[in-house]
Amino acid sequence: MTADERFAQRPGELRLGFDPAAQAEAGVVFIGRARTPWRPGDCPKNPRAARERGQGARLEIDAPYRAGLEGVAVGDALVALYWMHGAPRDLIRQHPGHRDSPAGVFALRSPARPNPIGMGVVICTGLDAGAGVIEVDALDCWDGTPLIDLKPWLPTVDAPPDRG
Amino acid sequence: MTADERFAQRPGELRLGFDPAAQAEAGVVFIGRARTPWRPGDCPKNPRAARERGQGARLEIDAPYRAGLEGVAVGDALVALYWMHGAPRDLIRQHPGHRDSPAGVFALRSPARPNPIGMGVVICTGLDAGAGVIEVDALDCWDGTPLIDLKPWLPTVDAPPDRG
Repeated sequence: MTADERFAQRPGELRLGFDPAAQAEAGVVFIGRARTPWRPGDCPKNPRAARERGQGARLEIDAPYRAGLEGVAVGDALVALYWMHGAPRDLIRQHPGHRDSPAGVFALRSPARPNPIGMGVVICTGLDAGAGVIEVDALDCWDGTPLIDLKPWLPTVDAPPDRG
Repeated sequence: MTADERFAQRPGELRLGFDPAAQAEAGVVFIGRARTPWRPGDCPKNPRAARERGQGARLEIDAPYRAGLEGVAVGDALVALYWMHGAPRDLIRQHPGHRDSPAGVFALRSPARPNPIGMGVVICTGLDAGAGVIEVDALDCWDGTPLIDLKPWLPTVDAPPDRG
């Protein structure tokens, strides 16, 4: 299945009429890449689905950025941000197969979005900071997906407040 | 206080030796901006701190991207990703004032990071999708900060699994 087939336009879908990549206002650098068991067409939909398949993943951080791992520890919950470079960026309203009707991209977790940034909350299960290797419990992206950030996941900040 | 003063180098800190912005491998587009009560020097450290100040914020989505809001509703928990364009990108080990010792950027939520992407989990408290305006309960970034993505926050995906 090619990228075009995966993202063929369906009824009710809407394209921007321009490619956001051509209108970039800032640049992202790749700090490393994800190593996962997943290939296009065989990728779990989200980190929970990846977790259920019972296979871990590995984050490889490039040499210049490895000092940034100081203080990361096994057992930590982390937010991995990655760049889903295989997805079209102009599909503003979409109709994913699992939904009854189309929805705007900002109501979906689709990889096809104006900035194709994916987010996975993961647990660090192993660490070799000097080699830039972080083992994690699960990740829902293709093998080789570029990483753009890692953050500590903080329960007091990254879960929504009690809405009474 | 200037950006240089806010990020003056302290003992134990380490710079990359290059500017990631000069080595960008992909481009981000700004989909809108945050309207907050905060100016540089007066910005809460995180969304919880912003929440405690009891002031809401507004996300303004630019016209081409507003169809992407279809399906977003008042009461939804959202992840807002924003671009902290005022921060240096080369400070790989840092010593924030609230810590006893330096740490790597990937163990910190500092705005100074290789890709200055900030993340706020917010509640949608009001919505005018046609005008591209989303009212949210709190946000921890400067007024005018560019927005780069909005995603639904999903409890089954965006909180770490029970670690037994």
